[in-house]
Amino acid sequence: MSYFRDNIKALEAYVPGEQPSPGTKVVKLNTNENPYPPSPAAMAVLRDFDADLLRRYPHPYARKVREAAARLYGVEPAYVLVGNGSDDLLTMVMRSAAEPGRKVAYPTPTYVLYRTLAQIQDAEVVEAPFDDDYSLPVDELIEAGAAVTLVASPNSPSGTLAARDDLERLAGRLPGLLLVDEAYVDFADRDAMELARTMPNVIVLRTLSKGYSLAGLRLGFAVANPGLIEGLAKVKDSYNVSASACAVGAAAIDDQDWKNANAEKVKASRARLAADLKEAGFKVWPSQSNFLLARPVDGGAAAIYEALKARGILVRYFNQPRLDDKLRITVGTDDDNAGLVAAIKELSDS
Amino acid sequence: MSYFRDNIKALEAYVPGEQPSPGTKVVKLNTNENPYPPSPAAMAVLRDFDADLLRRYPHPYARKVREAAARLYGVEPAYVLVGNGSDDLLTMVMRSAAEPGRKVAYPTPTYVLYRTLAQIQDAEVVEAPFDDDYSLPVDELIEAGAAVTLVASPNSPSGTLAARDDLERLAGRLPGLLLVDEAYVDFADRDAMELARTMPNVIVLRTLSKGYSLAGLRLGFAVANPGLIEGLAKVKDSYNVSASACAVGAAAIDDQDWKNANAEKVKASRARLAADLKEAGFKVWPSQSNFLLARPVDGGAAAIYEALKARGILVRYFNQPRLDDKLRITVGTDDDNAGLVAAIKELSDS
Repeated sequence: MSYFRDNIKALEAYVPGEQPSPGTKVVKLNTNENPYPPSPAAMAVLRDFDADLLRRYPHPYARKVREAAARLYGVEPAYVLVGNGSDDLLTMVMRSAAEPGRKVAYPTPTYVLYRTLAQIQDAEVVEAPFDDDYSLPVDELIEAGAAVTLVASPNSPSGTLAARDDLERLAGRLPGLLLVDEAYVDFADRDAMELARTMPNVIVLRTLSKGYSLAGLRLGFAVANPGLIEGLAKVKDSYNVSASACAVGAAAIDDQDWKNANAEKVKASRARLAADLKEAGFKVWPSQSNFLLARPVDGGAAAIYEALKARGILVRYFNQPRLDDKLRITVGTDDDNAGLVAAIKELSDS
Repeated sequence: MSYFRDNIKALEAYVPGEQPSPGTKVVKLNTNENPYPPSPAAMAVLRDFDADLLRRYPHPYARKVREAAARLYGVEPAYVLVGNGSDDLLTMVMRSAAEPGRKVAYPTPTYVLYRTLAQIQDAEVVEAPFDDDYSLPVDELIEAGAAVTLVASPNSPSGTLAARDDLERLAGRLPGLLLVDEAYVDFADRDAMELARTMPNVIVLRTLSKGYSLAGLRLGFAVANPGLIEGLAKVKDSYNVSASACAVGAAAIDDQDWKNANAEKVKASRARLAADLKEAGFKVWPSQSNFLLARPVDGGAAAIYEALKARGILVRYFNQPRLDDKLRITVGTDDDNAGLVAAIKELSDS
């Protein structure tokens, strides 16, 4: 007997973006972190955290975050499920709804973890390619009729937003769950939260890793009707969110002004960086997120990635079909972005 | 189509022990928390935590905890996998090794979550009853020949330790993985860590929730040979441990003196509480953990549980065969324990 299941043995582990060792001097534009610090109010909660709350088990549903998110979106707390990052919630969706004989569908290219999680469940995967303009392949996804359909909006690595009408039509026609992964929505013009409140099969996913500058805290939440939340919670680890992450995260959610002000700064920098990259010879897709998908018109994406890395600037390169001619570049501070553009110009001059 | 898998619809969610609302005045002897505070050195790390480390994604393998545990047990870091609590690691073991057609076996009664996790994987469950003295049913477990065999040692709710020879024989004869869940081992006379270093199929699980007084932090780790660790890591969430939990946990592991001193206090209190409970008319099983399994000789366990609860003292009552005549009582401070014994005496006098 093999120690592991056959599909696990065959699985290529998901490889997250490079994390430089602490102390390494790099400009890090590869994993879509927010360049601005988390809310000072949230950090104050961490600094003053009561040791007795670490001694005890935390609330199994991360009550404070659940209530903060419910207040923010005008729903009952029963509509909210909190996770150890939104990856934890993606895992819950897959463990509860995907298995052999049930399909998992999503447009491609998108967040690579969707495939990994479907493969872990040994579910049948249906990938529906985006057009070049990254509008949602609604008909293909409806035709797939999957138990779980996943749409990242804004999508990674394209940065593009799904049309609200497309999502609504999709939700209405699918026999299974529609998960709208809004990890990057804090940098977008609109969201799909209303669908989580009104459609019986829609789950909207949020994270504190991007807009809230708390990628290191691991906190995300799902919004959906209480029947769905209850089903997902059956496969949740009993205490999946630490007492400290819960308290810090609730304070961060309560500090909307801080998050929104940083998002506005990122959006302004995004416009400047897009213009600079176009001038430097890149095709740049319109982005509603905190990163840009950019294709060097004269080719050589992999070489540019490597040359930037050698100069201490990390961007993301995906060595896979349809992406291996492009770079995904996180919007940093204006200084970081200017350094990137200067390095790119140097490369093309040399 | 149902939104969820059939086995999930049928699943009764695991119910963790009651957590009183913050501010409620209770003596909490129901979820085996350590009555003493976490290491001051660990709390100092939390207090001074750098906001920039929360802004960025954490290390995917919680490097600092991995290295601290490796140092402590004299293994390479590749032998260690860190989890968001040991429940996260139990989930990884099940997701990677259990599925329909593969068996999961364990002695009963034990940690109820083992069954829940096996059911989520739709694996075949084999339960081998303990004798009344809670020695390991080795032959039955060997005969089951499961893909995953789980042994909690010390076991909950019995508090008893598996014999080292039994574990070694079991590991040598099983075709699959043997997981030794040592959540409570910090209160025991010996451990089975050596088996993780020497046997190809043994995974030893540890948590910081009990001995280290950090149940609210969510941190555990597995020790096993690097081949097993690599397989488990394939189903790990990419960033399953927060940057803050990693730093605090590493400092706690490095402060062995603090943990050991508290464990000695708990062990001394355990002996006194066991004697007092016997005097108060209970049969008490010998415990190597921070709790006692106790049976009121004259019956009425459920009534005692309810009456204690009404007095603001929470203990654990399991409404299930073989346990519904017993209570599981966490060893608290000597004051907490004395209060419990006084309340029990009052009940029997009334």
